[in-house]
Amino acid sequence: MKIAILIFDRFTALDAVGPYEVLSWLPNADLVFVGERKGPVRAHTDRLAISADATFDEVPEADILVIPGGPGQQALMEDSPTHEWIRAVDSTSTWTTTVCTGSLILAATGLLKDRKATTHWHRLDQLATYGAIPTSERVVFDDKYVTAAGVSAGIDMALTLTAKTAGETLAQKIQLLIEYDPQPPFKAGHPKTAPQEILNALLTP
Amino acid sequence: MKIAILIFDRFTALDAVGPYEVLSWLPNADLVFVGERKGPVRAHTDRLAISADATFDEVPEADILVIPGGPGQQALMEDSPTHEWIRAVDSTSTWTTTVCTGSLILAATGLLKDRKATTHWHRLDQLATYGAIPTSERVVFDDKYVTAAGVSAGIDMALTLTAKTAGETLAQKIQLLIEYDPQPPFKAGHPKTAPQEILNALLTP
Repeated sequence: MKIAILIFDRFTALDAVGPYEVLSWLPNADLVFVGERKGPVRAHTDRLAISADATFDEVPEADILVIPGGPGQQALMEDSPTHEWIRAVDSTSTWTTTVCTGSLILAATGLLKDRKATTHWHRLDQLATYGAIPTSERVVFDDKYVTAAGVSAGIDMALTLTAKTAGETLAQKIQLLIEYDPQPPFKAGHPKTAPQEILNALLTP
Repeated sequence: MKIAILIFDRFTALDAVGPYEVLSWLPNADLVFVGERKGPVRAHTDRLAISADATFDEVPEADILVIPGGPGQQALMEDSPTHEWIRAVDSTSTWTTTVCTGSLILAATGLLKDRKATTHWHRLDQLATYGAIPTSERVVFDDKYVTAAGVSAGIDMALTLTAKTAGETLAQKIQLLIEYDPQPPFKAGHPKTAPQEILNALLTP
């Protein structure tokens, strides 16, 4: 099963690495990080680089496409080689998935038109600009399009997708392998549960 | 604040990237991935490489040291340049932290002797071989030594450490920024909650 994970300048690393850590356990997983150019691609912090092991030309198709988000998303909202590649791979994919603001990139290609989708909580309304239907859930399935909320939600998305693709037994095995028994120290992971002053602090420029 | 994250051949990427994504938000975070050699370091899947941006010699000290685990841990249990570096940086650190089987590497350096520590559930007993006190909790603090359980536990560890180091307000902001509102699709993340047949399947060679 071919799994292609897009990386681009100023992506958010956990958006990509969460799904990678889960999906790499799929049967016959042939997983590759793909970039416009080969070599190290810097995350938004500039403190981490993941290698793009293949270029767009080298990965014309995939069973599962994963598009992460991050501050670099804003430079990818116009038609570009990245959009062309996403559309081409999507035409071959069984599942086209995104994490965080990766769904805004996918929406900008036109592929989420009239589809329910989610993204990072702070950017949810923006999906409507591109004709998608903003849906405030952690993981949203609409036909073959699977979108996850912000950053860490890619882990939940990938486990849910694994269950659908390869069965609940494998998904549970992976969950146990990565000891995904989360115990967040605070109730602060979503605007609905975070203390108001924490939310306000992030919303104040 | 200097944060050094060790990477080595066949590490588990999420062990390192979970804490990275949280700790990079610390005030004045000067975060660097460190390897025995510079350049791409392959994770255990061979499908992902993170760049080591600095060598051991270039990072003689750190406020926070992070040691991930992964199958490559088994090659790092004897004294080596890696052990020397860990001991040297530990002698300067405010916090020495591990994720998953990273605690076995740290234990093998002697630094966890008589200290409470955790690791991946499947390897917990092994900590005793090196004089540490196996402690089945998701995040264990013993003085400046902070150990996390398997793979995904590094996120909880880093948020807890952030709260201690820089305050609960910042920790909650980071939790909201990375939308860490986990919704695992199954109760399978720990041997105590996973279905027995899932646990048995992983324990059967």
